[in-house]
Amino acid sequence: MLVSTQAKYIQSLGHKKFRDADGVFVAEGPKIVLELIQSDNCRLVQCFATTEWLRANEMNLKGKEDLVVEVNEKELERISTLVTPNQVLGVFTKPVFINKPSDENLVLLLDTIQDPGNLGTILRTADWFGVRLVVASRDSADAFNPKVVQSAMGSLIRVQMLYTDLEEYIRANPGFPVFASSLEGEDLSDNLAVTKGILLLGNESRGISESLEKLAAKRIRIPRYGSAESLNVAVAAGILLSRMVGINQN
Amino acid sequence: MLVSTQAKYIQSLGHKKFRDADGVFVAEGPKIVLELIQSDNCRLVQCFATTEWLRANEMNLKGKEDLVVEVNEKELERISTLVTPNQVLGVFTKPVFINKPSDENLVLLLDTIQDPGNLGTILRTADWFGVRLVVASRDSADAFNPKVVQSAMGSLIRVQMLYTDLEEYIRANPGFPVFASSLEGEDLSDNLAVTKGILLLGNESRGISESLEKLAAKRIRIPRYGSAESLNVAVAAGILLSRMVGINQN
Repeated sequence: MLVSTQAKYIQSLGHKKFRDADGVFVAEGPKIVLELIQSDNCRLVQCFATTEWLRANEMNLKGKEDLVVEVNEKELERISTLVTPNQVLGVFTKPVFINKPSDENLVLLLDTIQDPGNLGTILRTADWFGVRLVVASRDSADAFNPKVVQSAMGSLIRVQMLYTDLEEYIRANPGFPVFASSLEGEDLSDNLAVTKGILLLGNESRGISESLEKLAAKRIRIPRYGSAESLNVAVAAGILLSRMVGINQN
Repeated sequence: MLVSTQAKYIQSLGHKKFRDADGVFVAEGPKIVLELIQSDNCRLVQCFATTEWLRANEMNLKGKEDLVVEVNEKELERISTLVTPNQVLGVFTKPVFINKPSDENLVLLLDTIQDPGNLGTILRTADWFGVRLVVASRDSADAFNPKVVQSAMGSLIRVQMLYTDLEEYIRANPGFPVFASSLEGEDLSDNLAVTKGILLLGNESRGISESLEKLAAKRIRIPRYGSAESLNVAVAAGILLSRMVGINQN
């Protein structure tokens, strides 16, 4: 049974301030919750689930029984941020990454990505292509915003996110040429596979800020054959990463 | 001033049934509304806008003054489906396409794409790559759902959408080899540029239905270098289209 203080606590975790204070975040739905429970990278703090889900996942909860609260559909609805609540909601500690950021060869830089759905999809895409570090400007969406968590689909615990000043980051990593995605760039060619580099993506409507774009070694544009004014930033990330990680070397 | 019957009418257009009955749809925000007003492909039925927007767009509304209703922020909020209402909301007739579907060489087929945001992003991506026909299964999201309209960003009036039985569509177009995006497919190579073909994409969680996948000439997979279980369907569409439209031929 859900008690009122629990419901209030879960609701408070919709705000970054409260997530940061306790170092935790919320994930929902059977697939992602199970993936996080089984991960070594984060720890289950509490889990609110329907009888149905608990029955199906008894084995996966061995030794964690104390952390489980059985709830009915109505109670789940009360704490869920989903339009259609989906069996289970878990509170987890934020992931801890062992790799040093400096170990990575291909890094994604995000300048003011404000839509949480876009940020989550970018993390998922980075994870697919083996990019393990995403560095975002401080005014980007928070990685543990519930909408980011849902659209990242578990990639959140595999892709490390840092929030920092992007100009400083670029200057501190002179060995990494910056490839900036820009509508004014050169058309993308086949020869983009890099051994070390940074892919820089800009804000959904304003693009990359001028001062950052100046630091780019190359500005690249995905060739346009039709009439759309721009591509969604997560789609652009996917197309560019699919080139940079060396599909063309096959 | 917004009258109650107008507000109720706009709200009713959130439902497909009412959009279909009148052959109209709703778009919001200065950028997309202006683009639709200036398009030859659809016609403004009515427009609800703040004083600020009306002042800035006097020239663009020449001859259409009768269709304009001035509203305040509170009234706009009442009819808007956006979290943050954005200056203007327009009701437009659905676009009319002159090209025959059979004139197209590269067609996108969508099997049960149910998330409106994904569908809108796919339309925008198709438009970028010059694909002018998207054929969707009847259980896919409606192209004129407000969320599709907002994420398609004007591509809706340039990309024609048909809803039909996909098996029948494929059988009726034997000259078009079907490339199916599938996690079990062959790794994507450089040589995917086609002169005539269909790109088939499947449902967000279940993929392409078995009976459809059987009709594919080739199953293709975007090579994975990391650990994400799958890619977002709009991101996959972008990566595959960027290959199929012949970037590699440059």
